[in-house]
Amino acid sequence: MKADLDNLMKKYGVDVILVTGSAQHNPAMIYFVGTAHVSEAILIKKRGSAPVLFHYPMERDEAAKSGLELVSFSKYPMTELVKEAGGNYSEAYILRTRKMLEDLGITSGCVAIYGKDDVGPFYTMIDRLKEMLPNLKFQGFIRDEIMMQAMMTKEDNELDRIREMGRITTAVVGKTADYLTSQKTKKGVLVHKDGSPVTIGEVKNLINLWLAERGVENPEGTIFAIGRDAAIPHSVGTPSDPLCLGQTIVYDIYPCEAGGGYFYDFTRTWSLGFATDEVQQLYDNVKTVYETLYRELKLNAPFSVYQERTCELFEGMGHPTIKTNPATEIGYVHSLGHGVGLRVHEKPFATTVNPSPNDILAPGAVFTLEPGLYYPERGMGVRIEDTVCVTADGKFEIMADYPKDLVLPMK
Amino acid sequence: MKADLDNLMKKYGVDVILVTGSAQHNPAMIYFVGTAHVSEAILIKKRGSAPVLFHYPMERDEAAKSGLELVSFSKYPMTELVKEAGGNYSEAYILRTRKMLEDLGITSGCVAIYGKDDVGPFYTMIDRLKEMLPNLKFQGFIRDEIMMQAMMTKEDNELDRIREMGRITTAVVGKTADYLTSQKTKKGVLVHKDGSPVTIGEVKNLINLWLAERGVENPEGTIFAIGRDAAIPHSVGTPSDPLCLGQTIVYDIYPCEAGGGYFYDFTRTWSLGFATDEVQQLYDNVKTVYETLYRELKLNAPFSVYQERTCELFEGMGHPTIKTNPATEIGYVHSLGHGVGLRVHEKPFATTVNPSPNDILAPGAVFTLEPGLYYPERGMGVRIEDTVCVTADGKFEIMADYPKDLVLPMK
Repeated sequence: MKADLDNLMKKYGVDVILVTGSAQHNPAMIYFVGTAHVSEAILIKKRGSAPVLFHYPMERDEAAKSGLELVSFSKYPMTELVKEAGGNYSEAYILRTRKMLEDLGITSGCVAIYGKDDVGPFYTMIDRLKEMLPNLKFQGFIRDEIMMQAMMTKEDNELDRIREMGRITTAVVGKTADYLTSQKTKKGVLVHKDGSPVTIGEVKNLINLWLAERGVENPEGTIFAIGRDAAIPHSVGTPSDPLCLGQTIVYDIYPCEAGGGYFYDFTRTWSLGFATDEVQQLYDNVKTVYETLYRELKLNAPFSVYQERTCELFEGMGHPTIKTNPATEIGYVHSLGHGVGLRVHEKPFATTVNPSPNDILAPGAVFTLEPGLYYPERGMGVRIEDTVCVTADGKFEIMADYPKDLVLPMK
Repeated sequence: MKADLDNLMKKYGVDVILVTGSAQHNPAMIYFVGTAHVSEAILIKKRGSAPVLFHYPMERDEAAKSGLELVSFSKYPMTELVKEAGGNYSEAYILRTRKMLEDLGITSGCVAIYGKDDVGPFYTMIDRLKEMLPNLKFQGFIRDEIMMQAMMTKEDNELDRIREMGRITTAVVGKTADYLTSQKTKKGVLVHKDGSPVTIGEVKNLINLWLAERGVENPEGTIFAIGRDAAIPHSVGTPSDPLCLGQTIVYDIYPCEAGGGYFYDFTRTWSLGFATDEVQQLYDNVKTVYETLYRELKLNAPFSVYQERTCELFEGMGHPTIKTNPATEIGYVHSLGHGVGLRVHEKPFATTVNPSPNDILAPGAVFTLEPGLYYPERGMGVRIEDTVCVTADGKFEIMADYPKDLVLPMK
């Protein structure tokens, strides 16, 4: 939680957090500024102090929505900085940040850098600031145990926003099921009134529309894939594919609040009209593992324990897994889950390759549980996924209920 | 154009381009990979060679859509790299990139870095790679004259995609005009059948929906602002504001292809039902300047010339401008325009503060022409904007036609 930040900064020897970029699809910035849609800003938080937001003068009204202490870039006029930098625009741009740091009394210590932005200009700026302010150390974290750790455990208002995204997500999934099962069929293919096939691309357009109607975004797309595509975990589906009865459809949907706020992550696998025996068996295996895992979840347990357990369970059913063969492309081929918040993938991670000891199912953690099995050559893929949270009193909760039926009977 | 890249790299002493990040809302990556929706990738292009795309094994099908030479990250298994790095995951992650560079024979020279990504991990990686490969120099550009320059001049297929975005944008603007003029009014306010006022927020929701129906996004929002808000260039509008007759509405819409492709940028100023004399006069001033500028556009002219010219024209009409007072918040307060492409703001820029000599109206350039006048205290703002391109044979073309009427008569 945000309240943990100062302690985490102390634990990892960080004196200052500096966040760059816009407040659109930029989790670190959004975490601080909320719904203030600044297009380019710098946020600086000293350990033990409230953050300060530097913003464009034209965006003063937006910046004010953050409720943070504000400083306008107009305090540092570029025309004067360009003069001071001997006509060098790039140097003037760097000088501006130097002055911001100095105005906050930051001239020594460790500055942790965050934010999604153009890496080129930012790299050049930091590299030059190191020369200008030799007592400052700048640090970026490939594995971040400070902001990502604070963000891992959600406050109640964050959980409420994710639950609302879950409600919207499952409403759209319900509309998708209604649409599919209401179509006519001809020779085992869903068809329109004029006899033309209903395609993956059309359904995806409808999903986009239903999400937009509810004021949310799916910046990373949606997986709606059938047959062999469904058996390749990250294939998003082929738009021209027709929808055939009795084939597995993997429908993985991960929308977020408009502008890049909180996400939800959800998957169901469907077979329209009927399921073949081998698909049903595969599905039952995945559902059994899902239910076993959910029952076994323990407060504050390392998430990686359940990745190990998933491999063990699937192997017991005779499936290859990445535990026995890290390069396998059949059987169980991915991670059991990941945290969900302002990023669709965040802490806690379930990875067993050098897991962080902090990736645990702590109160406030929100994570996916998504076992799956994939057999591309047999044209079958199955995944079941819910987003789960740990409540403040240590209970596990599926954040949006939705039936787990494989077969959707045609109306 | 992409074909210019090798020459530009040579001109600025760059041997390698390295692009990081996803292919969503990441112009440098999208420029190379097109519509292949990889979620995390590294692209490396040596001068004189075709680019190579390093991608996650699970995204092989998406990566293949790029048509580029591919290398899967599975060539560099993290478990082995972690071992090689003595159990240090961050170091292993950096080693992976080192091996990619070495496998392409890149161990000396200048690497220009691009892409929108988390700046922290990327900074740490480059800083460490500099130590590992001391003959490599890494450079990020605060003012970029290589990729941004190549991207400034569009190929015909890029112009076609921007024209199509223009067609969609103006179709949505037309629907908005139809919707507004079809409403009832009561005491000078647009009202629903139940007598409740039609609000800015409702209209913006409809705009979002109409854009979504056409399969496009507006990641940076839409400006639909009335009255005093219309007179503050970057105010996006207040959702609860009612729509009143005879007040200026600034409607600035800048959507892009789904996933962050090509943008269009367009503004009209409307006054519903009637316009007051002072608004009409302000509008006529802006329209006159727009038309004068468009007539005066010359092939290969520096864009900044027209910013100067705009100030001169507005000053001749008695308006304050940022030329006479850089801090003015009334009159003409912003830049005349900017390039449009995979970014909504890109080269050519019209800035007169240290303009780049390369920011010219060259064949293939796509740019906005958007003079405006703002008087917040009088509750009036006017801006007219079209996206214009320079065709291969050196002609100027407004990329999507739309009427420039100020007054929209109510039906």
